[in-house]
Amino acid sequence: MKKVSENILGYSYGDAEVARSTVSMKDLESLKVSAGFTEEDVRYLRLAGEVLEDQTKQIVDHWRGGIIAGIPNLARHSKTPEGDPIPAYLAASNLRFRQWILDTCFRPYDQDWIDYQQEIALRHTSTRKNKVDGVRSTPYVPLRDVIAFVAVMNQTIKPYLASKGHSPLEVAKMHAAWCKSIQMQVALWVGPYSETGKAPSDW
Amino acid sequence: MKKVSENILGYSYGDAEVARSTVSMKDLESLKVSAGFTEEDVRYLRLAGEVLEDQTKQIVDHWRGGIIAGIPNLARHSKTPEGDPIPAYLAASNLRFRQWILDTCFRPYDQDWIDYQQEIALRHTSTRKNKVDGVRSTPYVPLRDVIAFVAVMNQTIKPYLASKGHSPLEVAKMHAAWCKSIQMQVALWVGPYSETGKAPSDW
Repeated sequence: MKKVSENILGYSYGDAEVARSTVSMKDLESLKVSAGFTEEDVRYLRLAGEVLEDQTKQIVDHWRGGIIAGIPNLARHSKTPEGDPIPAYLAASNLRFRQWILDTCFRPYDQDWIDYQQEIALRHTSTRKNKVDGVRSTPYVPLRDVIAFVAVMNQTIKPYLASKGHSPLEVAKMHAAWCKSIQMQVALWVGPYSETGKAPSDW
Repeated sequence: MKKVSENILGYSYGDAEVARSTVSMKDLESLKVSAGFTEEDVRYLRLAGEVLEDQTKQIVDHWRGGIIAGIPNLARHSKTPEGDPIPAYLAASNLRFRQWILDTCFRPYDQDWIDYQQEIALRHTSTRKNKVDGVRSTPYVPLRDVIAFVAVMNQTIKPYLASKGHSPLEVAKMHAAWCKSIQMQVALWVGPYSETGKAPSDW
């Protein structure tokens, strides 16, 4: 599987330590139908992956340095509660962010993928945020902000998808596949946030 | 305010009976920043509204009759638990669905708008589904399917936005504004679904 780096601190995709989600492959198939996600989308995500794989650093720098850094309400989640930067935390989570782009495009959407969506979500909730990096930062990222920022990612990914000379139709299909995948991921991320006892404090 | 019909059963936008959301205007401003939603988007939503206002029936027929009707897992939410159609329920909810398109484009995003997002979400949860129509149907629409179907709506709205001869750039800006608005709405819909005691059963 393609990796943005040999060593990605805290990246545990497919590892035995990743908890099994209660969402099954059958649930995922149903979710694909609801999102209109088809085999054509799988193919266009692969193409998107080929287009994006040498641009993941640029994209994440754009999102993190160009956008999130300018929004105090979002930027705080990579800092200490006092607002001091935590460079190692930012660096590791940026690597994982870059790898997430590749995983979105190249990974088979199987049980490991479902389980890792749960892991990603948990790491944004008060159950697991900061744990894998051993840092002191905000206790959780509100789900509302995660969902809203998806709109930014979906919008700003467009020029990167168009940067390798594909036709407008191909770019549009890559983008549609990307958006459907992200929407399915959001649907899965809601799960860990919605567990009784945690919701609605973290949303 | 523009209405798709003089009488829309169960449409209570701005009415005193609509519960106040715990989400404030300040929260919404913060959400807009996270979604990259600006005054330019407000203008392009107005333009989208002008483009869509005489097409809401076509669009909702496309979504409901052309897509949802063919997906048993989604179509069941407009039927009895035994799978029998409830034509009056479908008709009323289709009118509300059409009005939602106009509201998305034309309404000021104020406290009434925030409160009605909560109302819309509640009407998809086990707290309020079927109540306003007095019908016997599925107890709730799983949040996962709501979120996934957003991908379908965002994708299939494109040709309708492009149908009045606007430039590709204008259509793209209308579409971007639409997608950002819907993503903010999804972020707000998660709230009622996440309330302790209800989550995660309805998601």
